[in-house]
Amino acid sequence: MTSPSVLESTYPCRNEMTWSRSEKAIAHKAFNAALRRDFQAAIQKAQQMASRITEPEDLWELEHYLTQRRKEIDRKYQYKYSELTHVFGKLLQDGRLSEEELRGLREDKLKAIRSYAKFLAEMEAS
Amino acid sequence: MTSPSVLESTYPCRNEMTWSRSEKAIAHKAFNAALRRDFQAAIQKAQQMASRITEPEDLWELEHYLTQRRKEIDRKYQYKYSELTHVFGKLLQDGRLSEEELRGLREDKLKAIRSYAKFLAEMEAS
Repeated sequence: MTSPSVLESTYPCRNEMTWSRSEKAIAHKAFNAALRRDFQAAIQKAQQMASRITEPEDLWELEHYLTQRRKEIDRKYQYKYSELTHVFGKLLQDGRLSEEELRGLREDKLKAIRSYAKFLAEMEAS
Repeated sequence: MTSPSVLESTYPCRNEMTWSRSEKAIAHKAFNAALRRDFQAAIQKAQQMASRITEPEDLWELEHYLTQRRKEIDRKYQYKYSELTHVFGKLLQDGRLSEEELRGLREDKLKAIRSYAKFLAEMEAS
């Protein structure tokens, strides 16, 4: 069995990353912008689905779509500094965020974010 | 304690009502017409709500509305002959059905339906 101390020394521990005040401001802004885009996309899709409802099944399909979006948004948008590189990696990969919006974060964070986005892209492709 | 036999003889037992073939046809048609109206009302309301969405909260309000309608419709529309006088009484009271559409049902059934609709109206008023 691997002891915790070995794990700590060999596994890059994103929890230990510190966020400066300016980085926090960048992160906050990027996070909110992506969240707004996710909401906008959901609103647009819901309105499109609603306008095309003709059968009862379409109503429950819209309900299901909204429930899924609510759960997905709740899951995706966790504003915890210990999780932010994952959150941003996912948002990059989903196209909800551009690298440009993360400019100003320290290179170790950008590296972790890109690395997670790449990992997700590979997972999707496989 | 009241024995089952006393209950049976004193309590009007709607479960024992028999439905003739022509009554079943009338019931089926009225039931489907009311269900269609409930769906139409839900579709119209959902489309109206969707067209007015501007904030994320509006999305979840629409989801909640749809969930409530689905549950309500599931609960209201039980096509069991043992329950139909209650179902029709509720639909009369809700304005989803007119007495005209029930014409051709035997008088004992109409009486039970009207009686339940009246009971619901009194409950609402109190």
